[in-house]
Amino acid sequence: MLAGSIRRARRPRAESPIKPAAVNRQVLLRRRPVGPPRLEDFEIAESPIPAPREGEILCRTLYLSVDPYMRGRMNEGRSYAAAVELGQVMVGGTVSQVVESRHPGFARGDLVAGYNGWQAYAVSTGAGVRKLDPGQAPISTALGVLGMPGMTAYVGLLDIGRPAPGETVLVSAAAGAVGAVVGQIARIKGCHVVGIAGAKDKCDYVVSELGFEACVNYRTQELLPALKAACPNGVDIYFDNVGGAALAAALKLINRNARIPLCGLIAQYNATELPPGPNLLPILANRALVKGFIVSDHADRLGAFLADCTRWLHEGRLKYREDVVEGLAAAPAALTGLLEGRNFGKKLVRVSPDPTASG
Amino acid sequence: MLAGSIRRARRPRAESPIKPAAVNRQVLLRRRPVGPPRLEDFEIAESPIPAPREGEILCRTLYLSVDPYMRGRMNEGRSYAAAVELGQVMVGGTVSQVVESRHPGFARGDLVAGYNGWQAYAVSTGAGVRKLDPGQAPISTALGVLGMPGMTAYVGLLDIGRPAPGETVLVSAAAGAVGAVVGQIARIKGCHVVGIAGAKDKCDYVVSELGFEACVNYRTQELLPALKAACPNGVDIYFDNVGGAALAAALKLINRNARIPLCGLIAQYNATELPPGPNLLPILANRALVKGFIVSDHADRLGAFLADCTRWLHEGRLKYREDVVEGLAAAPAALTGLLEGRNFGKKLVRVSPDPTASG
Repeated sequence: MLAGSIRRARRPRAESPIKPAAVNRQVLLRRRPVGPPRLEDFEIAESPIPAPREGEILCRTLYLSVDPYMRGRMNEGRSYAAAVELGQVMVGGTVSQVVESRHPGFARGDLVAGYNGWQAYAVSTGAGVRKLDPGQAPISTALGVLGMPGMTAYVGLLDIGRPAPGETVLVSAAAGAVGAVVGQIARIKGCHVVGIAGAKDKCDYVVSELGFEACVNYRTQELLPALKAACPNGVDIYFDNVGGAALAAALKLINRNARIPLCGLIAQYNATELPPGPNLLPILANRALVKGFIVSDHADRLGAFLADCTRWLHEGRLKYREDVVEGLAAAPAALTGLLEGRNFGKKLVRVSPDPTASG
Repeated sequence: MLAGSIRRARRPRAESPIKPAAVNRQVLLRRRPVGPPRLEDFEIAESPIPAPREGEILCRTLYLSVDPYMRGRMNEGRSYAAAVELGQVMVGGTVSQVVESRHPGFARGDLVAGYNGWQAYAVSTGAGVRKLDPGQAPISTALGVLGMPGMTAYVGLLDIGRPAPGETVLVSAAAGAVGAVVGQIARIKGCHVVGIAGAKDKCDYVVSELGFEACVNYRTQELLPALKAACPNGVDIYFDNVGGAALAAALKLINRNARIPLCGLIAQYNATELPPGPNLLPILANRALVKGFIVSDHADRLGAFLADCTRWLHEGRLKYREDVVEGLAAAPAALTGLLEGRNFGKKLVRVSPDPTASG
């Protein structure tokens, strides 16, 4: 349950009667968190459902994606994208259904992926909106394995990591939306794949379900010796989602010419000041490469990503797991939990019933 | 003066009389330093001058190069190259004259650059030895601006940094053998060049002699605000020779798609345990690249480097400064001083008189 305050929409004026159902619910950023975000930092507001103008569509949100990058958007100033302003709707990827179209490219009933944010309804010009074919894959995958997290894994591993058969690939947050795809693609490419995760069930999952060779539980195992044992030939690619102690340990095991796609630093997203990082001597000594990247810079790879990952999905070589909570009001707790590693698989909020879901 | 002990060669046996002049002096690694190396960690030994066999040359050392990487070779285990063993001659680049040749490719009197180490004479098979033309440039430059440090600057800046006209290039240890070349090549490439150095005369030198736009004195100025002022458009390339506080400050100023050739971490070479490094969030947020590199991996670039830098030298666009001490016995103090930033320009030891020097 959301502990934040509820701001009700103004009572509708007589000349514009609004049906009770015709209310848009939104989650706004109420306060900038210092340290871990709290539920009180969010606010649920109700407002009239917006009307599309010519060239626009009105979308009903079915699924909202919950991703670690959202923490950065809650801070003042830009991290790698502009901050959400106080009182504004939180940003977020969505799968929606078009409920009204005044756009020639979309029809009522179309299923689309976009960035409509934490709200039940949104108007869009169609820019950045991609139509989904529910016959290809469950539409929720457009926020996970066939969406931004999957493409992050694909671009970071293949374009920066450049895995070669027989190399060792280590990935942190291995059971997460990105890490699980990284490891599975690395396996498809013939690598020895080792994960780091924070729970026994997650470690078991990536080994028995996803086919990783090993997975180290950073909450119960001593990281460096456990990783050494799991990576007897050292680490050629460390795909980092977390930073912190995992990165520091991984650097001690990297091989010559190692590549480190720097995808996320979840371990420090809630830090109130920048903590020190790892010592960089192993990077120098091993001629290693560290490359920060943001998937949105790599739109040119969307076609290849979708083709490859859809095929691997159909072939059963790429599996995924979703961690779905019900109702928009659950989104704030979903994010705070995600930042503490309490998700297991791709975190989603089901905002409205999925019309394509069976059962 | 060297405070270390002197190990004298055994008294020559009667059947192999050795002339007093025919003594080789060597500096050996006596003890592995913990923290900053001390003069007592070295030992001067005397031994017979070795005799070249068929296919070998005997070289008399004229100049010995003193470089920060040597500190790493004094440690147990490998840093990026094998350690010097206790009791063995310290490694080092040399400019020498061939005094006896049993190799068809070399003649007595030839001037050569190689890695003969901290000793007055050495026998070589000619592998890795490059003949020098004193008509092209002073032969000592083969250890500096036209040698390993210059090529380090060239490869790191051009191949990893990939400078574009108008970009801002920041370089630490700016008056050093590598940094000075980095800044001057960056200027040749049309960049805004800012240095970091540890003394007023060094800062003045890189600005007035080498043409940097600015140079920040890290010993007297507050690094971050001074760098901000000197780099009003942020930093596109940070060529790092030192790590530590300079790297941490530079990361706070990097622009999107910044490149960071990681060349050295002098600030921590004497550390007894790996200190924490900088926070990596700016690398992620700015999609920056950090690349460790070792110049010896880039032998394919030797021809281009020598052609470009010799031409720039002749054109007066590439200047250099040498900091020469006299006599092999001065080498240990030269290295300990270098690691504390007490050199001003390329640190060299003149082991024997340079027969090509005028005056």
